[in-house]
Parts: sequence; C-alpha cells; structure tokens
Amino acid sequence: MQKDKDAVSLSLVDTQTSAVAHVRALAEAARNALPVLAKMSTEQKNAGLMAAAKAIRDQAPAIMAANEKDMEAGRQDGLSSALLDRLALSAERLEGIAGAVEAVAALPDPVGDELARWDRPNGLDIARVRVPIGLIGVIYESRPNVTVDAAALCFKAGNGVILRGGKESFHSGTALHAAFTQGLEEAGLPADVVQLVGTRDRAAVTEMLTAAELFDLVVPRGGKSLVEKVQTESRVPVLAHLEGICHVYIDKAADLEMAADVAFNAKMRRPGICGAMETLLIDQSIVADFKGLFQRLSDAGCELRGDSVVQRHWPDAKTATDQDWATEYLDAILSVRAVDGVDGALEHIARYSSGHTDSIVTNNAGTAEQFLNGVDSAIVMHNASTQFADGGEFGMGAEIGISTGRLHARGPVGVEQLTTYKYQVRGSGQTRP
Amino acid sequence: MQKDKDAVSLSLVDTQTSAVAHVRALAEAARNALPVLAKMSTEQKNAGLMAAAKAIRDQAPAIMAANEKDMEAGRQDGLSSALLDRLALSAERLEGIAGAVEAVAALPDPVGDELARWDRPNGLDIARVRVPIGLIGVIYESRPNVTVDAAALCFKAGNGVILRGGKESFHSGTALHAAFTQGLEEAGLPADVVQLVGTRDRAAVTEMLTAAELFDLVVPRGGKSLVEKVQTESRVPVLAHLEGICHVYIDKAADLEMAADVAFNAKMRRPGICGAMETLLIDQSIVADFKGLFQRLSDAGCELRGDSVVQRHWPDAKTATDQDWATEYLDAILSVRAVDGVDGALEHIARYSSGHTDSIVTNNAGTAEQFLNGVDSAIVMHNASTQFADGGEFGMGAEIGISTGRLHARGPVGVEQLTTYKYQVRGSGQTRP
Repeated sequence: MQKDKDAVSLSLVDTQTSAVAHVRALAEAARNALPVLAKMSTEQKNAGLMAAAKAIRDQAPAIMAANEKDMEAGRQDGLSSALLDRLALSAERLEGIAGAVEAVAALPDPVGDELARWDRPNGLDIARVRVPIGLIGVIYESRPNVTVDAAALCFKAGNGVILRGGKESFHSGTALHAAFTQGLEEAGLPADVVQLVGTRDRAAVTEMLTAAELFDLVVPRGGKSLVEKVQTESRVPVLAHLEGICHVYIDKAADLEMAADVAFNAKMRRPGICGAMETLLIDQSIVADFKGLFQRLSDAGCELRGDSVVQRHWPDAKTATDQDWATEYLDAILSVRAVDGVDGALEHIARYSSGHTDSIVTNNAGTAEQFLNGVDSAIVMHNASTQFADGGEFGMGAEIGISTGRLHARGPVGVEQLTTYKYQVRGSGQTRP
Repeated sequence: MQKDKDAVSLSLVDTQTSAVAHVRALAEAARNALPVLAKMSTEQKNAGLMAAAKAIRDQAPAIMAANEKDMEAGRQDGLSSALLDRLALSAERLEGIAGAVEAVAALPDPVGDELARWDRPNGLDIARVRVPIGLIGVIYESRPNVTVDAAALCFKAGNGVILRGGKESFHSGTALHAAFTQGLEEAGLPADVVQLVGTRDRAAVTEMLTAAELFDLVVPRGGKSLVEKVQTESRVPVLAHLEGICHVYIDKAADLEMAADVAFNAKMRRPGICGAMETLLIDQSIVADFKGLFQRLSDAGCELRGDSVVQRHWPDAKTATDQDWATEYLDAILSVRAVDGVDGALEHIARYSSGHTDSIVTNNAGTAEQFLNGVDSAIVMHNASTQFADGGEFGMGAEIGISTGRLHARGPVGVEQLTTYKYQVRGSGQTRP
C-alpha cells in the first residue's frame, strides 16, 4: 500500500516536472525566435498570416477530424450542450477562423510607430516608439477559435505566444496550431514564436503564471473563475477581463423612444456578452414612461427585477435585492432601479459597476458630459448601446479581449494594445554635466 | 510560560490586525476623496501644490526637529554614514523639496488629454482620454524627499496615494506629510487623497501589496531587495525599477574622442545612479585606441575589470568573470569587454542587459539604427551618455522612478505615466445590429 502511494506520488512529481520543463522549453524556443521575428518587415509578417489562413483552409479535413475527437470525448464526459456548441467546428466556423487571420493581416502594423518625438535644449532627440511586449502566455477555455485569434494577434504585434487551451479542445487546438505554424514556416517566418502547450497537466499553467523571467504578460480568456484564478496566482503581469456589470442610465432629458431602443438593444441583442447591460437605471420621474419597454422586454423573454418604484409601475417585476445590483447575469434577466437624476446614477454606478461599459441616454449635453467624465469605467457612452463595447465595433479590428484592469490597456485589447514602447535617444556626443 | 507565549502571540495578532485596519482605513478615506479631487481644475490642483510647498517652508522648524529625532535614532542604531547622509535634511535640502513641489505644479496636467479620437461609419465618435489611475501605494526607504515627491506627482495626476516610508525616516516623513496635507487643506483641496502610513508594522506593507480591491498600483522605490520583495509578494500591479546594468558600445566607426568622453561621463559622473554604465563594450579592432580612457578612469579612481583582449592593452585591469557582466556595481568599477562589431555588442547586451539604458557611439548611421532597433531596452541611445536616463533630462519634469518593467510604462515614470485612459463614446441613439 505504502509502496503504491509512493509510486503514484512519484509519477505525479514526474509528470509535473515534465510539464514544467515542457513549458520552459516552449518559452525558451519562442524567446530565441523573437529576434528573428523582430527583423521581419510588415509585409513578411502579413504574408505569414495569409499563409497561415491558407494552411487552415487546406487542412480543414484534419482539423474537423480532430474536432470530432474532442466532441466525442465531450459527449462521453457529459458536457452541456452549450459547452459542446462552443467546442464544435463547422465548415462555416472554420472559414470564419481563417478569415479572422486574414483580417489581422490587413490591420496596420503598430510596431515601430512613433508615439511622440521631441528635442531637448542640449540637442538630444528623443523618440517614443512602439515595440512588441515580448512573450505572452494565453490561457483559455474550450473555444477552438481562440487558439488562432490569439496566435494571429500576438504574432502581428511581434510577440511570441504560448497557447494553453482547455482540455476539452485539446485535439482541435493542436490541429489548428499545426496548420497555423505550418503556414508561417512555408512563408519563411520563425514559427517557433507560436507554441501550443502539449500537455493537459495543470502544472503547465502554474509555470506560465510563475515564470516571470520567461513570460512578460499573461492573458486569461474565459469565465470569471478562470480569470480570478489567474489574477490571484500570477507573478506575471495580467491583462484580463473580469466581468461586465454594465449600466444604461435614462436621464429625464432623454428622447423616450431612443432610450427604449438603446436599452432594449443593450440587453437583448446578445444577453450573454460582456457588454450586455445588466442594470437599467431610470430617472425616478420618468419610470412610468417605460411601461412599453418593460412590456417589450417581457415579451422577448427577459425577466425583470425592480425596486419599489419600478414595481409600482410594473407589478410583474420581481423584487431586486442588493445582490442583483452586483450581479452579471449574462442572461435574459435585467435589474431596474429608479434613481434621483444623474447624480443618483453616478452614485449607483460608482458602487456597483465593474468598470467595463456604462451608457447614458439624454439630450442634455451638460448632463452627458457630467456622465462621460464622472463614470470611471473603461468605456463610457452617450446615446449608444453598451453592446458596441467591442474591438471590431471600435474599428480596432480583432481583439484578444476587453480589459477591465486599469493599467497598460483598458477596454478592447487589439494589436496596438499588445505592444509597449521604448525610447530612442539620438545625440551628437552629449555628456551630462 | 505557555501563558506568556499566548499573550505575546495575541498581542502580535492585535498589532497586525490594527496595522491592516489602519491601512484599509487610509485607503478607503483616500478613495472616498478621489471623486472630489476629480472635480478640481488644473488651476485648483496647482494652487494646492503651491500651498503645500509654502507649508513645507513655513513648517521648516518642526520638520527639522522631526528629522533630528530620526538622525538621533539612526546614530543610536548604528546606521552607516551613507544612510545617515540620505536621511539628513538641511535648509538647502528642504528648500529643494519645496521647490520640487512647485516644479510639479508647473508641469502640464495630463488628465483629460485626448490621446486619440475617431469616427465610425455608424456615426459613433470615439475618444481615448487620459484619466487618473486611482489609488497608488508607494513603498520606499529612508529618503525623506520621496514622501513629498511621490505625493506631489500622484496628486498632480489626480491619484490618491498611500505613502509608506522606511522606519528610519518615520518622524521626518510624518512632519513633511503633515505640512503637505495642511497646504492642500488650506487651498481647499481634499487632503485625504494623500495619506501616510502611521505604523512601522510590516503588516501594513503586506496589506498594501495584497488589497487589490483598494490599490490600483504599487510603486516600490528603493534597493533591489525591496523591489524584488514587492514584485514577489504583490497581488497589485507593480511599476518598478529593478536594476540598471547599462552598457556603452564603442563601434569601430566611432569618433574616438567623443567615445572616450561619453564613456567616461557614463561611468564617472555619478557611478551610483541607475543610469550609470556598468559595462563598456569596445569593438575588438580599436581597444588599443582607448588606453587614454583607461588611464583617465584609473586616475579618477575607477577599478577596471577586462577580458583577455582588454588586459593585453591594459595589463592593470583585473580579470572580468561572467559574474561581472551580470553585476550592477553602482560604484567606481567598470567591466570592459572586446566584442566583434555591433553584432557582438547586441549579443552581449541581449544576454546581460537589465533592459534599462544602453548606448552606442558610432558615426555610422546604419550601425546606429541597427543598435537603436536591435537593443530591447527601455532607453536606447546613440552618441549620448547613459547618465541622461532621467525624467528631468527627458523634459518630463520630476519622476517617481524609472520603470524596467515592460507594461504600462517603460523608462522614466512622470506625471503622464501615472495616468491611464478611458474611452468616451458619443452617439445619437445607435443600437448594434
């Protein structure tokens, strides 16, 4: 018995050791290839991305077969139909994945951009120039497209990337990564900068979060529990989206029809995305004007939870508790609260917003500016649906996610946000007195 | 005996609990005051800083008396003369501290700056606007001026700040903080945004590093061991300067006199600052041309450690080991290595540089650009002394330090780097299709 236990724990240690060594080997290979990538022109990088898109299309049969393996295992493991749907590839989805790589190729290359340049009285010429961040670890769940999206975005910005997907999409991710890197190789680019973790051992993730000498940034993509886990454990800087408790505030100076349309869209276009409205705030004097909106939401299958003022005008609303104001439903549920003007809205948002996206509907320009300046969220809107909180809708092209942190990047994280800067100082022999 | 032990551990827990509660109370008071600060105009903030500078001058007797208490305790504790010198205030130093606050008042206010603005085809108007980071914890050692520098910089950028200085400067820091906040109060500004930790209990620091729900950023200012400790323990994002292993590379196309002047200045102007050169790289074909420089360095009291090529031309040089290339001396010691052209220099720097500041001396423009692009450090220079690595020299005004991390800010961290951004999206009722 004792012997067996020893054997098990020894084998565990061995697996962990090998998972750690595996991640370190991938990271070192990627880091070693970064200087080669740094010498590539924008045209060369784009050619690599186009070749990667082509390879994904060419290898569709192998990728679909790998995905079927994952689906079969998922069904056997009793994954929910929602999870199975996320996992599933189809010809159309695969084309979407390849097309997304081409879209990244079409984006401007931020590397080398001069962010600022000035001269000093002593003649020194100082330039602040965009450069890649370095090596990025991406830890995600079961959507196969993330493997390719993250690879393309990191690559375009000149970074190395170590991809670690959920175990459910292991075979799909492996096949997509193989196609992507084969495309890069065929185009003469250093494919080693894009690596996929080839073990499902959890020790691999721990190593990605703790090897601060190898990783410059970690990006978790997934549900709140994954993100919280990464934020708590990581010794490497994290760029992450935690949650989106988004608000729409309807001011008494709002166009009522516009307000109802914006609110309905903010909730119901896609209730499950992070930019979906979770709480509707209405000036207390005009709650009665939104019975039509409440009806429309109810008809669309949205459950309403309101405070006493809201319930007076819409008795079908359940009673909203304090917990409701702090909840990201990601579902067809909406909490509604009557507030005392824009100041009441600002107070509620300061207390409950997750700092993602909040919007005001009003025709009073002064009130709008008060809200735009007073709300301390990554994205603050006026007369627009919170569902526009998206890199594509911002015109930034693809995004690796939306950051709810405050440092380095807030809001959509696209190619530009996957860079940092350095200073280039040009002199003529200056010494400091 | 057992009872005594219990009593001791109970009192320890009590102290820790109260240190934690103390820090949390300070942080909450500062956070509560931030919305008030956010409403203050640039003129009001500047008036507050000017009043703080005046209060420091007015309270000079009390501040000097507090400093004498620290000096006395330091002498009794046997602090080194270097540490005592850092700790000591004089009329001149106090005037420098007050003047630095006025200099921060004179800097442009970055808050509200529009970093970018564009329209979308659907009519949405998107602006990226600078905003304060939030609440910043500053953990530093015994220099009393840091209390005031950090307070002024954080305040100017609209941030709250919790200051935690070393125990050696406890009384000086307390007196300076009292003067600073009294000035703010007199000018009608929310002095609660600037707080000083009033306990020397180490549990206060731990709380600053772990209360990620209260602190948005931690800035450690001090030696490598303090910074490493903060980087290892912090759950809050860290902006820090770890070390400066800075290089000057003299190319074969260098102006020999300029090269010698730049190298001498980079090392000897102030050998103890982070931007001081620690390793001199010389193209192997021109080492013989720098005997004059070696002589000049030796005459100035600089110890030379060289590789075999260098030793052939300068036999007095000690033998440099691998450890030398990886050492930040912060002293009148220089390691010198002969390298094979700019490629050899790039290779050495990629391996040993701490990513702080590296400089090339050459008259070949192509080689210079290869170096400026190829070296992945926060600051890369051409024909200039590494001692210019400084926020003031960059024209950024005062700095809270130089960041050797890669995210959010690299190089000098001034008022601008103590901000982040948000998006303001202005629409006319747009809903997302």
